[in-house]
Amino acid sequence: MKVLELSKPKTTVLKIGGSVITNKSGELAPKMEDIRRLAKEIKNAGIKNLVIIHGGGSFGHPIAEKYTLKDGFKEENQKIGLAETHYAMTMLNGLFMDALIWRKLPAMCISPSCCIITKKGRIQYFEEKPFNTLLNMGFLPVLHGDVVFDTELGFTILSGDQLVSYLAAKLGAERIIIGVDVDGLYDDDPKNNKSAKRFEHLSLEELKKLQERLGKPTACDVTGGMIGKIAELIPVIEKGIPVTILNAAKPNHIYNALLGERVESTLIGKE
Amino acid sequence: MKVLELSKPKTTVLKIGGSVITNKSGELAPKMEDIRRLAKEIKNAGIKNLVIIHGGGSFGHPIAEKYTLKDGFKEENQKIGLAETHYAMTMLNGLFMDALIWRKLPAMCISPSCCIITKKGRIQYFEEKPFNTLLNMGFLPVLHGDVVFDTELGFTILSGDQLVSYLAAKLGAERIIIGVDVDGLYDDDPKNNKSAKRFEHLSLEELKKLQERLGKPTACDVTGGMIGKIAELIPVIEKGIPVTILNAAKPNHIYNALLGERVESTLIGKE
Repeated sequence: MKVLELSKPKTTVLKIGGSVITNKSGELAPKMEDIRRLAKEIKNAGIKNLVIIHGGGSFGHPIAEKYTLKDGFKEENQKIGLAETHYAMTMLNGLFMDALIWRKLPAMCISPSCCIITKKGRIQYFEEKPFNTLLNMGFLPVLHGDVVFDTELGFTILSGDQLVSYLAAKLGAERIIIGVDVDGLYDDDPKNNKSAKRFEHLSLEELKKLQERLGKPTACDVTGGMIGKIAELIPVIEKGIPVTILNAAKPNHIYNALLGERVESTLIGKE
Repeated sequence: MKVLELSKPKTTVLKIGGSVITNKSGELAPKMEDIRRLAKEIKNAGIKNLVIIHGGGSFGHPIAEKYTLKDGFKEENQKIGLAETHYAMTMLNGLFMDALIWRKLPAMCISPSCCIITKKGRIQYFEEKPFNTLLNMGFLPVLHGDVVFDTELGFTILSGDQLVSYLAAKLGAERIIIGVDVDGLYDDDPKNNKSAKRFEHLSLEELKKLQERLGKPTACDVTGGMIGKIAELIPVIEKGIPVTILNAAKPNHIYNALLGERVESTLIGKE
């Protein structure tokens, strides 16, 4: 049993939301101070077997929406939109990679469009050899929401949230940490309702009930938002992987969470 | 026979050497005017079924040499060098992609490190699904020299030249165009010997004789230089794919060559 544990490293899957590292109301508007601060927190935490996935924010969403990429290939004109969206994501990724590598973290980007194929928007195929090698050799793999080719739709948008749950399940991750721009999961939208109450802890059953109450993700959010996050997370929580949703815009919350300390957050799954 | 020809698109594999789009004597020194000019020439030529591969120049070589990445994994310290080299290559690629996409070319980058594994430096595995889909859907795939993981060495450098010959052979390409910063293949180094004579045309046999005379690639050039290029090209010329080596630093040479016009160059293989 001990040998088995040793042979399976305890991986942390860290998601950094697009709203944390970009200004969502702008266009191609990075939050450079937050990017640098997060890179420093990740460096200082110094944990091993970490996988990072970041969202697109104002780099990914506006162009993807303009060309309705999520719904798949319908007209020639979308092709330049696909190229632009991917390029914008690589630009944002570059800013994040620069901040990580400048701090001497051996970070390597894996672009989903190069190695993932979806079917009706769900990951059907992932060429994992380079990714696994990165992780096994002690590199820091960084992935991001991206455009991907789809066996039925031609192409579509792959959200960072789907990547998080897919990779966490595949790796049998020890935990998932999701950094957003609010303090966790609330019973209502905390940005519009000041008396919204944050959940300190949610069991799988409570999360499922919350999902029923909130309904399905709406079409206007290309990567699903918080309701989409919940839908993606249920399968990994069912596998026993706990998820912490916290405010990555607040200094040291990611740092403390990486070190296993409890911060203001919502913990879903086992305590 | 006609059906067979129709079902197999005539692909052009275009290599843009690192010396054309970067200043090799500098560090991270792009030649922005040349990058923009080449993007414009590619746009204006407007040919279909094109694959572009670019080299690293002063973005890839200096860091790769500093950390002796080509020889494989030997010490922990190299990991940050690998991350830096890959990141530098993505920066150069980004500048090129920006110039292509700005001109409304549906260009998509495929990072070799995400989908290629080598064995002792030779491509052993290429996850080609996203690449093939790109090409079949009418996108413009762009690849570049990169760091890659290697089953024997841990990691190594994959040259743009190896990518050119590998992809051209795999696709059964119609032709290969290689843009460098001299006018073709010479009987001596034209940069050091002003009386060096350029070959107008070389048959496969003549190329093999030239290779014998020049000897093997030296270790100091991480991606092989012209002698390395010849070694990579022999297998594709044996397959009947003609190769044109020309000066991409000279305006409209790439444009004219893409349109099938003969420019000052060395043509290897069938006339």
